[in-house]
Order: sequence, then C-alpha cells, then structure tokens
Amino acid sequence: MMDGFTLTTVEEMEAATQRLLETGARVGADSWQVRVKQQTPHCKFGEEGMCCRICSMGPCRITKKAPKGICGCDVHGIVGRNFLRFVAGGAATHSDHGREICHTLSNVAPDGNYKVKDPEKLIRIAKEWDVETEGRDIYELAHEMAEMALLEYGKPHGVSRWLSRAPKHTQEIWKREEIEPRAIDREVSTAMHMTHMGNSSKAEALIRQSLRSGMSDGWGGSMCGTEFSDVMFGTPHEVETEANLGVMSEENVNIVVHGHDPSLSEMIVEYSEHPDMIAYAKEMGAKGITVSGVCCTSNEVAMRRGIPMAGNFLQQENVVLTGACEAIVVDVQCIFPALGPLSKCFHTKFITTSPIAQMPDSEFIRFNSATAGENAKQIVRAAIENFKNRKPELVHIPQMKQKAFVGYSVEEIARKLDGVTNSQVDERGTMKPLIDCVRSGVLRGAVAMVGCNNPKVRPDYAHIELMKKLLANDIILVVSGCSAQAAAKAGLMDKRAKEFCGAGLKRVCELADIPPVLHMGSCVDISRMVVLASRIAIDSGWNISQIPLVGCAPEWMSEKAVSIGNYVVATGIDTYLGVEPYASGSEKVDGLLKGGIRDWVEAAYTVEHDIEKLGDMMIARIEEKRAALGI
Amino acid sequence: MMDGFTLTTVEEMEAATQRLLETGARVGADSWQVRVKQQTPHCKFGEEGMCCRICSMGPCRITKKAPKGICGCDVHGIVGRNFLRFVAGGAATHSDHGREICHTLSNVAPDGNYKVKDPEKLIRIAKEWDVETEGRDIYELAHEMAEMALLEYGKPHGVSRWLSRAPKHTQEIWKREEIEPRAIDREVSTAMHMTHMGNSSKAEALIRQSLRSGMSDGWGGSMCGTEFSDVMFGTPHEVETEANLGVMSEENVNIVVHGHDPSLSEMIVEYSEHPDMIAYAKEMGAKGITVSGVCCTSNEVAMRRGIPMAGNFLQQENVVLTGACEAIVVDVQCIFPALGPLSKCFHTKFITTSPIAQMPDSEFIRFNSATAGENAKQIVRAAIENFKNRKPELVHIPQMKQKAFVGYSVEEIARKLDGVTNSQVDERGTMKPLIDCVRSGVLRGAVAMVGCNNPKVRPDYAHIELMKKLLANDIILVVSGCSAQAAAKAGLMDKRAKEFCGAGLKRVCELADIPPVLHMGSCVDISRMVVLASRIAIDSGWNISQIPLVGCAPEWMSEKAVSIGNYVVATGIDTYLGVEPYASGSEKVDGLLKGGIRDWVEAAYTVEHDIEKLGDMMIARIEEKRAALGI
Repeated sequence: MMDGFTLTTVEEMEAATQRLLETGARVGADSWQVRVKQQTPHCKFGEEGMCCRICSMGPCRITKKAPKGICGCDVHGIVGRNFLRFVAGGAATHSDHGREICHTLSNVAPDGNYKVKDPEKLIRIAKEWDVETEGRDIYELAHEMAEMALLEYGKPHGVSRWLSRAPKHTQEIWKREEIEPRAIDREVSTAMHMTHMGNSSKAEALIRQSLRSGMSDGWGGSMCGTEFSDVMFGTPHEVETEANLGVMSEENVNIVVHGHDPSLSEMIVEYSEHPDMIAYAKEMGAKGITVSGVCCTSNEVAMRRGIPMAGNFLQQENVVLTGACEAIVVDVQCIFPALGPLSKCFHTKFITTSPIAQMPDSEFIRFNSATAGENAKQIVRAAIENFKNRKPELVHIPQMKQKAFVGYSVEEIARKLDGVTNSQVDERGTMKPLIDCVRSGVLRGAVAMVGCNNPKVRPDYAHIELMKKLLANDIILVVSGCSAQAAAKAGLMDKRAKEFCGAGLKRVCELADIPPVLHMGSCVDISRMVVLASRIAIDSGWNISQIPLVGCAPEWMSEKAVSIGNYVVATGIDTYLGVEPYASGSEKVDGLLKGGIRDWVEAAYTVEHDIEKLGDMMIARIEEKRAALGI
Repeated sequence: MMDGFTLTTVEEMEAATQRLLETGARVGADSWQVRVKQQTPHCKFGEEGMCCRICSMGPCRITKKAPKGICGCDVHGIVGRNFLRFVAGGAATHSDHGREICHTLSNVAPDGNYKVKDPEKLIRIAKEWDVETEGRDIYELAHEMAEMALLEYGKPHGVSRWLSRAPKHTQEIWKREEIEPRAIDREVSTAMHMTHMGNSSKAEALIRQSLRSGMSDGWGGSMCGTEFSDVMFGTPHEVETEANLGVMSEENVNIVVHGHDPSLSEMIVEYSEHPDMIAYAKEMGAKGITVSGVCCTSNEVAMRRGIPMAGNFLQQENVVLTGACEAIVVDVQCIFPALGPLSKCFHTKFITTSPIAQMPDSEFIRFNSATAGENAKQIVRAAIENFKNRKPELVHIPQMKQKAFVGYSVEEIARKLDGVTNSQVDERGTMKPLIDCVRSGVLRGAVAMVGCNNPKVRPDYAHIELMKKLLANDIILVVSGCSAQAAAKAGLMDKRAKEFCGAGLKRVCELADIPPVLHMGSCVDISRMVVLASRIAIDSGWNISQIPLVGCAPEWMSEKAVSIGNYVVATGIDTYLGVEPYASGSEKVDGLLKGGIRDWVEAAYTVEHDIEKLGDMMIARIEEKRAALGI
C-alpha cells in the first residue's frame, strides 16, 4: 500500500494473477482460465434450460422440430423443472450446512471443543421460540434449542419457526401464496418429487415451489446456520482485518482455510494461535503461523476473529500458486476439485475434512465436532511440518492487500446506529436513525450485494465497479460472500473509502464511524440481511417491498445463489443479476421470474449483462421506490 | 380370448396400438411414437452422464480436448454427481408418496374417509417399533404410528426403523459400509449437498451415498408407503382381475385412474361402486361405470380390489385414443404431460389432483384426505356427465384382455405356502416350503422383475420374453409395476400359464395354486420384495446374497427405478438392467456399479441390451449361486 489511500484496481489484481499463472505454467499446472477456454462455447440447450435428463427415455432437447420431450413435456415444463432442481440444490446445500451447526450446538460443553460464546443471543432466540429460559443452565438450554432446531429440518407439521421475525404483511403474503416453508428437508424432497418424470410441468407450480424451496433456505436452514454460529462462535462486531493475497506471509507457515462451515476454521485458528504450535513452527524454520481464508469460511473467521482474507472464489487456485501455502484446508462447498492436481505441482497439502466433500488427490482427515480439537491439531502440525518442503524458486506472494473493517451483524449495525442517537431521548437498538437518513434523502437507499465470481463476468470487476457507482450515488452497501471479499480487496471496506461516496453517505460514514460497504458475513448470512430488512420495515412502518433497497448478485455462479435470490425476492426485495439462470429457454418461466412473481410476492428478478446498465437500473428502482413513498 | 388358453403376443398388442394411432392421426393427436423419432438421436454427453449443469459457470462437457469442467471436476466426478442426483430424485419421489400415506394415516377415523382395514398388521408393526399395543384403541394407535412414521422422514438422530427387518448379516454390512439411511429426507438433502458445486467429486463417495439414498427409499419411504397402505386399504390377498385395454367397456362410463397413490384411487373406486352413481350413469345413458387403471395406481387397486388394469406406462395415451375414456384421473408420477393436449382431441377429461403434479391442459381438482370423499364424488360425477360428449365415430376399444390373479403380498405368499404344508407337523407362516423347493432344485431360483417401459427397448417385449424364458427354466417370478402389467396383459398371471413352465415350476404352481408370475404390487411395493428376501434368508440361514435370486428391470426409465436398483443391490441382490443408466461416461463410476460395489454389499449391476443374453446371464448367475450353496 502507498502513502495516500487509493483503491486497488482490478487491473492490478489481474496483473498479480498473471504473474502467478506464469509460475503455474512452469510447473505444468492447469488453471480455470485455461479450462474456460476449453469449455467455450457452452451448450445452448443447457444454458437455456431446454435439455431434460430427468428420465432415461431421453435425454430430450427442445427445438422447433422437436417441441416436446418424449413424455410430452413442453419447454416450459422442462425449463421450470430444471430451475426448481437448481434451487433445491442450493437450498439443500445451505441448509445442510446449517444442520451441521445445529449438530455442533448439540455438542457444546463448558469444557468441550465448542462452547456457548453468546449466551444472550441464545436466550433471545429461545424466547422467540417460547422456550423457558429463566434460571436455566445455558448449556442445557443450548442442547434443547439444538434439538428444536434440528427438528426444523424434519418436523411433520407446521412451518418454519423463523418466519415470525418478518413483518405481518410479509407473513400474510407467504401464507396467501402457499410458500411458507414446512420442514426444511421436506421442501427439498418436494422439489425433487415435483420435478420427477410425470409430475409437474406447469411453470407456475414449479416456480412457486422454487420460491418455497428458497424460503426454506433463507428463513430456515441458513438462518439456523447464522444464528447458532453466532451463539457458539460469537456474534460479529466491528473488527479490523486485511484482504488479498498479500496477507500471506513468506516467513510464516501459511495455512489457508477454505469452504463454509466455521466449525472447522474456528478450531484451526484456535490451534494455530496456540504457543506450542507457534514454537513448533519456529522449530521448523518459520517465524510463525499465518492463517488466512478463502470464500465464506474466510468471511466467518474474518467477521469473528479478524483473520485476514486471502481471496475469493476465483482466487482459490492463486493461493496455491504463491508456492507459499503449506496447507489448504477445506470443508464444504465451492472448492475446486482442481486444487487436488494443482497442489501436487507444489508442496501444498490439500486437506479435505468432510464426508460431504471428498475429492481425488486430497488428504482426507475426517473432522467432527467430538474430535475437532485433535483433528485441528493434526492439521496444523501437518502444515508446520510441510514448511521445509517449500520450493523457494516457486515462491511469490503478490504484495497486495487492503485494510478492511468487517463484522456488521444486525446487532452491530444497531449498536453503530445507537452511537449516533441521543441516549437521553431516543429509543435504543432500533433502525430508526438509518430510516431517518433514508427519509431525509441523505441516504438514497441501500443495495445488498452478494454472490460469487463467474468467468462469464470479468471477475470482481462487476462487484467493485457497481459498488463504486452506488456509493457515489449515496447508496449504502451491505455485502456478503465473495462480493464482500471483492470489496475488501479493492479497499472499499477501509473507512477512508468514504471519499468515494456522495456527500450524504460520506457524512453517514463519518458520524457512524463505518466504512461505506458493510460486511455482513458469509453467504448463509444473507439471512442477516432479510432480518435487517424486516427490522427496517417494522421500525419504519413500510412494507419490505417499499424500502428503497434492492438485492444484487452480479457475478453469481452457484445453485446456492439462486436459492438465495429466491428467498430475497420472496421477502419482497427486487433482485438484480449479472448472469442469466438456465431459464431463458421458456418465456413462461422467464416471464414469471422477471415479472409474474411480482403479483405474488411484490418483487421480481432483473437480469442485465451490461454492468453499467445494471447499476443504472438499480439506482432508478431505488428512486422509484422513494418516489412511491413520497420521500 | 379364444377357447384354448394362449398368451397375447407383443405383435398383437402392437397391432392394437397401431389401430389406435390411426384414430389419433385423424384428430391430429401427438404420440410418444412420433416424439421419440423427433428426439432421436439423443445427446451423447447426456446419455453418458458427461455434461454438468450444476453451476452457472458452465454447462461443461467432457471431451478429449476438454477433460475437465471449469472447476476442475473430472469425468468421474461429473458422472458420479449426476448419478447420485438421479437416485436422489427417485428416492425423494417414492418417499414423498410414502409420506402422503403417513399423513393419510394421521387422518383415519372410524367414520372418516379412511379407516384401519388391517388392524392386525398395524399391531404387528407397532410391536416391531416397540409401541405399546395392549388394550389400545386401534385409531389412537394408528395416529401414534403415523406420527412416528412421519418422524422417520426428519428425525435428527438414528437410522431407519425398518432396517431391523433384515437379517443380521445384512444389517452389519449396512453399518460397516455407512449406508444405513438416517432420516429419509436427510438422505435426499445430503445427496443434493454432496453434488453441489465444490463438494464431492470422488466416485466412491458419490456412489456410496447413492446406495444410502436408495436405502432411504426401499428401507424407508417406500416401506412406509407399502406397510401403511396395507393398514388402511387392506393387505393384498389373491384376487382375480383382468388386464389390457379390453377391460374398458364401450357401454359404460370409463374412468381411468393413473398415477401412484392409492388414497385417490381407493376413493374413486369407492364412489364409482355407489348405487347413486351407477343410477346417475344410467340416467346419463350408460349401462354402468367401469374403473380401470394405468401404472402403479392400477396395481394398487388391482391387488386390493380386483379393479382391472387397462395398461402400463407406454399405454397411457392408448387409453385416451380409445375415444371411450370419460375421465383419466391422475395423482402423481409417470403421468405424460402429453395427456393434456391429447385429451383435448377427444371428449376426455384429464383431471389432475395433486399439488405435486400440476400440468397444463388439465382440470385441477385438489384432492386431500380431509375432503377425499367429496373430491371423489365430484370427479365421478364429472366423468358420468361427460359420457354424452363421446364422439361415437372415434370410439374403438381393442378387444384384447387376459385374466390375471394378483395380490401376492408377503403375507399372501406365506398363506399360500401354508397351503402346501402339513398343518399337523410343519411350522406355519414361514418361507420353508419355498426354500425346500429351491434346495431340491424343483425350483432353480427366482427373479424379481420390475420397472417401467422405455422406448429404447421394444415395449413389453423384454418383460414378456424374459419371463417366458425364465419360467421355462423353472425360475419363478415375483413382479411389480409396469413389468407386472406386461405379464398380466400377456396372460402370464393366468394360472393356466403354468403350461409355459418347466416341469418343476409347473408342479409348484399346481400344488400352491398360484400363477407362475406373482404380482407383488406397485413400484413402492418392491419394499415387499426385500422383506421377502429377508424372510427367505432368515428361514434358510443363507445370506441374502447367497439366495438363487436376482433382480431385473429390462425396460426401466425413471429415477425411481435406479433408486430401487440401488436398494435392491444394497440388500445383496444382483440386479440386471436392459437400459444403461447415464453413467457409462466414467469408467470409475461404471466400474463401481458393475463390480466395485460388490466388495461393499455383495451384489452389483449388470447391464445388457440384448434381451436374450440378459436372460442367459440371469440363469447362469442363479445356477452359480446354487453351485456355491452346494444345492
């Protein structure tokens, strides 16, 4: 970093990547950049959702000459089924992560690997769930809550407990539209059943269930994941950290955690900071141990412990290409199988830990909450012992990083807002100061920017450029996932980034002492964003759909992202995408997603590949909502 | 039918279909025969499982020039993931059917739409599940059992209750191989999670979970479906019926039930037999009401009520093409969306009833157990009132049908076997007489033949020809699903079909008074077959994998079929397929399915397109098993 504060540009990041790919070329490594070329052009049938492999009479593809599948299913049925399965894949994935957290909560003990770090939050949730809390042992309460949460996945009757957090109006919509999620896993099974050969082929029915599946994620499994992670690992509060590959240290043993479930990364961090381990690292010739993160697991430990972020999704191979990564330790989701063969080109140990994510060319150390401590110790030791195997001629860590303030949970946002109220006069812990800023026009509105990278979009460019544009227009950003890491790498989470904001937003940042882009966590933590929207709606008297707020995933790539999109839209928040879902082949499905569902849930999708236009459309939508509110 | 007993040939059936297609051509109807031509050739990438659409970076296709997807996943990971999702689709589908049955059981009442028809069976299951039965009201017990069964879908801990029915040795294998299914829906979610972008790409892990997913179906959801259907609708006992389109009556109002869940079809049958309805039909110019069935719903009501079977999967359009179908009433699964537009070419009402299966061009009458009676009455009335709209010039019902004895539940097989024992000396209710026949070689063994039709195989031909070959070799058949209907249409469920058997089997048929092909029910009832195999193993002292018994699905097409295959194989029964699953693109996945999994579960798949060879292989395998047993 230079003296004066400047943002890191995408061009600079790309140059750094280029340098690393040269190392890769020397050792014969494959890379996503090469594989994208090999896989282009993509199959049009798949890209438009018009290919059906659901039964073995096919596969069937829809063309003018073949307008129906062998069973007679038309293009709307085929596209709709594929879309629903896509969403179900995402919902199952997020929710299963949440389930693991609940199982971990079952195992908390005062002297165990996992403890209750935020008893207040646990008690608050218990009260929401009508569980007796007075005079109870906090661990006993945690175990009861864990069982109740686990039953959310499979209870035979009723709908998600979390729905009661939403404003009445939103709850009524969900009931009326029959999209209240029942047991979380049931919505996955229902989606699979509806899309099985010989079931639903009506676009409306399939899209309706896709909303309910999404709801079972955001207002079900993801919320379990977020809330009980906070209970065990602490609710995030503002903390300073750094981002980009420059956080890795040439002198230290570098352990990179990658994946999603904090149960693993928390333990790795814990043991890496242990004096015995640091001493052992020194013994092995290193100066110390640096843990950094990739993808959402990085967001989790950054938000709670200030652990630096090495990079986001499309940077995962770069971590190994530095030649300075002793171990990349992964749990679940978004992990390139490419890391196996790639790590073999270097000294890096690629350690898989979850039965859910087993990959060739990896070392499998099965991690579970009962043996978490031992597992983590074993992994940290293995990394330390691998330091000596580094090939110095291959080592190159791009000296590129930015300072970032992270940790803006809903609780922390409320705390920050309390900071600008008059404690003598104003109600504390509400969203009212924020609402006042929006009402007055000092803030025009907010964008929740989330999601992955995707080679179909210039990586990080869409995230960063959109953010800059929105900030300049006095639109505040709440972000998560790989979008958050893009912001952090650029420097947009440095408080000095206020200089890139319009006058109103700049003033808000100064008063509240926040950066203009607020890191709310990992992808499951988008559940925090819908809670935030609900709190704003309740405190303002607006419906969620009336708030000058939109969602945006400009570079999304995974099924989880569409599941998220579905619950965000179902919550009443218009959502803007930079990549088409595999649904454009059916005008009915496409029409529902981009318009028709507005009649059901007061929000819909917009897809626009031109990032400049996408930004303009969001700003216009926010201004439209302001005008409708008369503010 | 003629005087002397002859089988109906596939050629005769094809000629009948041809005649109906001519009617179709006159009214401009589409047909699967035409659509198959339009969809041929199929996409090779899809057919071999080598196309990945799991994230939106793609779709990716594996070729020599592009050996990996963008994420780096190799062909084994891609094929394995697609295979696991295929199985999960099937398991979810069967199990969700089972769940509906459990919900219906929650609603049984002495004066309700649904009652407990087999209290003995309910008590037997309750005892298996350690539920107090003494002196309890049977309805109260039913409600408690329903809640317990529903929890099998979502319980946070433990494995399926049904596993305890298997022999110890089999249970030990399941435990050792970690394929005991936990909560039913959880296995679906786990499968979706494992196959999400960035999770498992190791063939072994994916195939192992595919076995566990299958197990959650056969030893979970399907078993719930079968067992509690028996409790409510009666455990099947031998009953006479008829099969093929000739069961429809030109003079009567024809109602065809199609789908899978007996909750609907039972009610339709109930009301169609009501004197008021028959009187109403007469009033409207008909002589009466004929209910017949297609697909598994047909098997359900045939087994329990002797309702005739109009046809199987690829005959569903033929029912409408007769011009004499007043209403085709469907619930879930294997229903051609083609029935919508096709019914519009005739006077036929196409009535959908389930939120799971909503189709364009259908009339949707939402059916649920609380309003079942009214719904059924409404449907029967609508059919009756539609009689007058028939276009006589389009009416042609092929005069083709065969007599069939059906209803061979495990309980009924035991009863039949009791018939050949000496009640003074022998133990009753065991499989020992059957085992003795196998030991002595009077019977060489058994084949469980199941599954669908698929245009990739000459429809019904594989089922019927294989059966004839096996019978001639003294191999008895237990069958279900569309395979059972193929047998019935051919005449192989007529007791006179013993003439087509070898001398040993013929003698067995005479002594036990059974046809040589035993109809065990619908596709979910394949759970009966694994119970039968377990009973034989326990009574013989053999392991299941040692019994001279194999499974066969020569014309399968649905995801359910592969889920079934997986639990049949996981139970230790070698399974023979006539159609390749979409898995041939990976030698690792293919190798595991056709060989490697034998090390895990003592059985594997064989795929052979040449039906003659497929039969020879099964006979050889049965003889091999006999030799190994020294019998």
